[in-house]
Amino acid sequence: MHSHHLFILSCALLLVASVQAQSADQTIHFHATMDNVKPTFGPADPVAHLKPGNFLEANSLDCFGNALQKPGDPFSSVKIDNPLTGPFFLDGAQPSDTLVVHILDLEVDGKQGVGTFGPGFGAANSTHYTPMLEKEPLPERAWYYPIDAEKKLITFEALDSNFKTQFPLKPFLGCIGAAPANGEVRSSLVPAEFGGNMDAPEVSPGNTLYLPVNVPGALFYFGDGHAAMGDGEVAGSAVEVPMKAKFRFDLIKGKSTAWPRLENDRELMAAGIYRPVDDAVRIAVTELIRWVHRDYGLSELDAYELFSKVGHLHLTELVDPNYVVIASIEKKYLPLPLSASQ
Amino acid sequence: MHSHHLFILSCALLLVASVQAQSADQTIHFHATMDNVKPTFGPADPVAHLKPGNFLEANSLDCFGNALQKPGDPFSSVKIDNPLTGPFFLDGAQPSDTLVVHILDLEVDGKQGVGTFGPGFGAANSTHYTPMLEKEPLPERAWYYPIDAEKKLITFEALDSNFKTQFPLKPFLGCIGAAPANGEVRSSLVPAEFGGNMDAPEVSPGNTLYLPVNVPGALFYFGDGHAAMGDGEVAGSAVEVPMKAKFRFDLIKGKSTAWPRLENDRELMAAGIYRPVDDAVRIAVTELIRWVHRDYGLSELDAYELFSKVGHLHLTELVDPNYVVIASIEKKYLPLPLSASQ
Amino acid sequence: MHSHHLFILSCALLLVASVQAQSADQTIHFHATMDNVKPTFGPADPVAHLKPGNFLEANSLDCFGNALQKPGDPFSSVKIDNPLTGPFFLDGAQPSDTLVVHILDLEVDGKQGVGTFGPGFGAANSTHYTPMLEKEPLPERAWYYPIDAEKKLITFEALDSNFKTQFPLKPFLGCIGAAPANGEVRSSLVPAEFGGNMDAPEVSPGNTLYLPVNVPGALFYFGDGHAAMGDGEVAGSAVEVPMKAKFRFDLIKGKSTAWPRLENDRELMAAGIYRPVDDAVRIAVTELIRWVHRDYGLSELDAYELFSKVGHLHLTELVDPNYVVIASIEKKYLPLPLSASQ
Amino acid sequence: MHSHHLFILSCALLLVASVQAQSADQTIHFHATMDNVKPTFGPADPVAHLKPGNFLEANSLDCFGNALQKPGDPFSSVKIDNPLTGPFFLDGAQPSDTLVVHILDLEVDGKQGVGTFGPGFGAANSTHYTPMLEKEPLPERAWYYPIDAEKKLITFEALDSNFKTQFPLKPFLGCIGAAPANGEVRSSLVPAEFGGNMDAPEVSPGNTLYLPVNVPGALFYFGDGHAAMGDGEVAGSAVEVPMKAKFRFDLIKGKSTAWPRLENDRELMAAGIYRPVDDAVRIAVTELIRWVHRDYGLSELDAYELFSKVGHLHLTELVDPNYVVIASIEKKYLPLPLSASQ
Repeated sequence: MHSHHLFILSCALLLVASVQAQSADQTIHFHATMDNVKPTFGPADPVAHLKPGNFLEANSLDCFGNALQKPGDPFSSVKIDNPLTGPFFLDGAQPSDTLVVHILDLEVDGKQGVGTFGPGFGAANSTHYTPMLEKEPLPERAWYYPIDAEKKLITFEALDSNFKTQFPLKPFLGCIGAAPANGEVRSSLVPAEFGGNMDAPEVSPGNTLYLPVNVPGALFYFGDGHAAMGDGEVAGSAVEVPMKAKFRFDLIKGKSTAWPRLENDRELMAAGIYRPVDDAVRIAVTELIRWVHRDYGLSELDAYELFSKVGHLHLTELVDPNYVVIASIEKKYLPLPLSASQ
Repeated sequence: MHSHHLFILSCALLLVASVQAQSADQTIHFHATMDNVKPTFGPADPVAHLKPGNFLEANSLDCFGNALQKPGDPFSSVKIDNPLTGPFFLDGAQPSDTLVVHILDLEVDGKQGVGTFGPGFGAANSTHYTPMLEKEPLPERAWYYPIDAEKKLITFEALDSNFKTQFPLKPFLGCIGAAPANGEVRSSLVPAEFGGNMDAPEVSPGNTLYLPVNVPGALFYFGDGHAAMGDGEVAGSAVEVPMKAKFRFDLIKGKSTAWPRLENDRELMAAGIYRPVDDAVRIAVTELIRWVHRDYGLSELDAYELFSKVGHLHLTELVDPNYVVIASIEKKYLPLPLSASQ
Repeated sequence: MHSHHLFILSCALLLVASVQAQSADQTIHFHATMDNVKPTFGPADPVAHLKPGNFLEANSLDCFGNALQKPGDPFSSVKIDNPLTGPFFLDGAQPSDTLVVHILDLEVDGKQGVGTFGPGFGAANSTHYTPMLEKEPLPERAWYYPIDAEKKLITFEALDSNFKTQFPLKPFLGCIGAAPANGEVRSSLVPAEFGGNMDAPEVSPGNTLYLPVNVPGALFYFGDGHAAMGDGEVAGSAVEVPMKAKFRFDLIKGKSTAWPRLENDRELMAAGIYRPVDDAVRIAVTELIRWVHRDYGLSELDAYELFSKVGHLHLTELVDPNYVVIASIEKKYLPLPLSASQ
Repeated sequence: MHSHHLFILSCALLLVASVQAQSADQTIHFHATMDNVKPTFGPADPVAHLKPGNFLEANSLDCFGNALQKPGDPFSSVKIDNPLTGPFFLDGAQPSDTLVVHILDLEVDGKQGVGTFGPGFGAANSTHYTPMLEKEPLPERAWYYPIDAEKKLITFEALDSNFKTQFPLKPFLGCIGAAPANGEVRSSLVPAEFGGNMDAPEVSPGNTLYLPVNVPGALFYFGDGHAAMGDGEVAGSAVEVPMKAKFRFDLIKGKSTAWPRLENDRELMAAGIYRPVDDAVRIAVTELIRWVHRDYGLSELDAYELFSKVGHLHLTELVDPNYVVIASIEKKYLPLPLSASQ
């Protein structure tokens, strides 16, 4: 174990200090419309350039491109799934760097959300990737959710019986990512190493997301705003909403991350993204243990044991082409970061 | 949908009133030792008889039969894994009934716990059921955890570096179940339809557990006390402790449950238990949706949609022969139970 | 690597010479009826005792206990699934020995077979362990198959259109096993380390099966005869038939096997049994590689590479509570067994 | 069931008559080198245009770009994995058509093949998508395989002991596919709906492959020649070779296929491609059943039952980012195709 190596890493992941200092405190504004959104994570002409330290204020359309507005609106009016705002080119970002995205603010851009069930998509029905012989598929359905921004409450109204209930507004972004590695371009329905459609409530204000930079400029995208979501997004949708977002960007030079990571004052969070869930868990847990080992100095077995006593596993979604698990541990249970003790 | 049918069910699951009324308020005491514990869930001579309404106060040994007491104690001194206290015969219980276990109190029976890593067991290492070719297995290890019952704090001490941390005491039972169906006898390492080694923190004071009755008397067992555990029990153990437990028992006649369910004032919780996790989720989610549909009157699609917005999935363990997921929903988001509206 | 150790093993697995020599060449006969069949693999009073070297001639009922004989016979008339013939007590067998079963002859005991589809069972429909929300389950169905023993042909007749076809008779036993380890008793629907409902066409005349001995006498069972079966038994059944079987038994003292293995003059075959299939493959492949390494002297990496070039994976069934994969390699691609070179 | 609809389909899938008739019988030649190969399936400038009915003769480099030629050649000399020959633009091909590829001839382009083990890749060791904590990864290794084209034999030589063996040459293409749907670009390591790195021995002379057309011209690629391979390609490679290939192309207008299908005079073969294997099987089996139902007129349940008696499942690989299963049924067990009876 080389403490110099560890120092650089922890310093980078925690402070990103030197880079920020050199960056202007500028805010870039961008307005997404159906004319400039993208259907994929991958190379595309940037809609704007950013510098490390910059702020970005931009909106996203909902996962249906805002096509479903009231009961009866046909699913066929949806032209693109998960239309993405972007890409944004981060000046100076090169492959093997880490893109740092501070999620500063998210605000639902409207007064209602929508949830849908469509046959072939869901965690507990016959789907494209887990097809079942059946007499007849379940029917297509849409639920519309009034959102009270002031009271931070969302209203569910049953379609098949006379029942309403309210639950809290907890906005986050379902899609957030940078261009994939190996020259790949992936649909905005896909979560993977590059982030993407992770549907992780952890992508919310106060958290910082680390993503691998795979192409010059990183090419950052976001979209698929959610006003609230249950674990697993099991019926195939959250409370789908247009969103107004505010981010700040940084760059960690010369260090990459194999999978998306998140962090805040209280927690380290590592994403594992694949199928079956068993493998998503293995990815998330090994990534978190390596993180704790590398930056906090516990041996891998000590970190494994400690996670087995106080760690958290969050099954964020089981409906996209890959499944997502977030493994997290509270920093209060960890040693000081190695960098801090230098 | 037959409202009479629903009335009976909800009434039974929520109130269990008539049965309780007929039962004496007696407390049965039992003391478990290595001489009377059992290695399996299945038929065996009852250690005591109980009547619906009775209380039980009994202890359990830790998952190693209390064999590991200090650093250096050899794993080979463990004579039985997860030794079970029981079985207890519930008078009147017959196949197709539901056993109702109110978990009233759990108290760690000692001043320390132990955690271990053993090669071939764990969520992120080569195991018996997910074997990998490797140069050399990871080594066997044991961590001892002082427990401060007054402050409700547990201390972790790293083996490979100089580090200590404390985390909260949250006692629950790793093993709890009744005899399996179809004449099966299952090792106390196994969770399945009959409950068993579910390693679910939900099996804690304040919660009520519903289990299928598969044999006359149900034959209730418990053990494998945990002072605290991280999600997934990923390294293969929790803070393993002997436990003192207090339960009250009831019986729902003529209604069974396919999989274990839990309930308290705030939540409905359905367990899904199998491999891969994907299937455990499908079981837990479909069971919870059917419960909400049957007893609260939402259509299955409305319940599926609502779960997709406010439901919880808890990955309790991924190391036992089967994996366990608890799907839950808060009652405040549900209609009144159908029985209540009769 | 200890050559002496390897010598004993190979010798035992291949020749079993000394034990046979001491055994009488006697044939035991047994007739199974609904009055003496068993629903589980586990301890039970033996129906007969055998000595190593003995032959056994006995029959088995079909997986429905011969209850379905003609179109219209109700599924409710099935009293027991996979009724097992046995158990047979092998004198001298002790835990940590290996039971050797030479499958000498199988003959369909009747003139027809039956195949069924039942909702909740199958590889590509909603099931007990992979449940799906659906509008309505697929309907129950039965197909009856005339069997021409002389021409060795079976006739399929479609239920929903006017079509018949014939395919070859290839009899094997769906169920074959000894009592499980750890005091467990498992349903005759379950395949696992002890063998059981493996639904492996490899359990056919000319092959030798190795099973772990877990209890004194091993307690051998068989049943669930199949006149023919497609890979995976995907709709939930084979051509189900009563069977007349002839076996010879041997015993390898002091050596056990973790999972079932099969062997004939041409091939080594290792069974992997669990869910998901991914893990069944890992078990089967690592077991076969260890076998080749231990008894034929290739390094594990050489054996892994060679399997990657000439190995076979057979997905025998994906419908039982566990899935079964047989990994095999032809002996002509292996070195001489280490024992032979001593 | 609309017989007119079925007529068109079967006719198209089996005969492709009208399109062929309009096509010239021309042969296009192309020579692949490291300067013109591609690392991904997706849009790229075509290397040549083809018309339906045309023949193509072209070569492919081995999966290492021919960089490993002798013991000691460093893995770091591999510049690109699975370099692809192509893309070829099929004139007239439009999204919703089916690309028909007749595999006419494959000839190993050289006198040896190579197999490798690399840590992080394989079916029974810790990998990128199934990571395990371990003390130390297994070491990197390469095996070189002399190929005798005349005797059609390949020689394996063990690295860790003195042992050689020979096995048959059975050439096929590991990579074959057209541009993916939804604007995606996928690495040449990936198999999916578009074909790709299926590592299916069924992609061999005498078989016809059907692929969905997702972009104008289809954009056909191939590569990753294999001289022979075991089921599952478990250690991560086959006998990797450069290849000379001969194809003929056709086009089915106005009909697409969700997943790759193969066909020859004797069999129908449907590919299922995803993780876990359980889902790959579900895809392959439901696709094959729908094919039999649509084109041969059996009801889905009759086809499911028949597959359960005579169907085949072939696990082709378990090491790529997705796993591949081929479900097949022999035509001699099916009714005449519906088109033939019109």
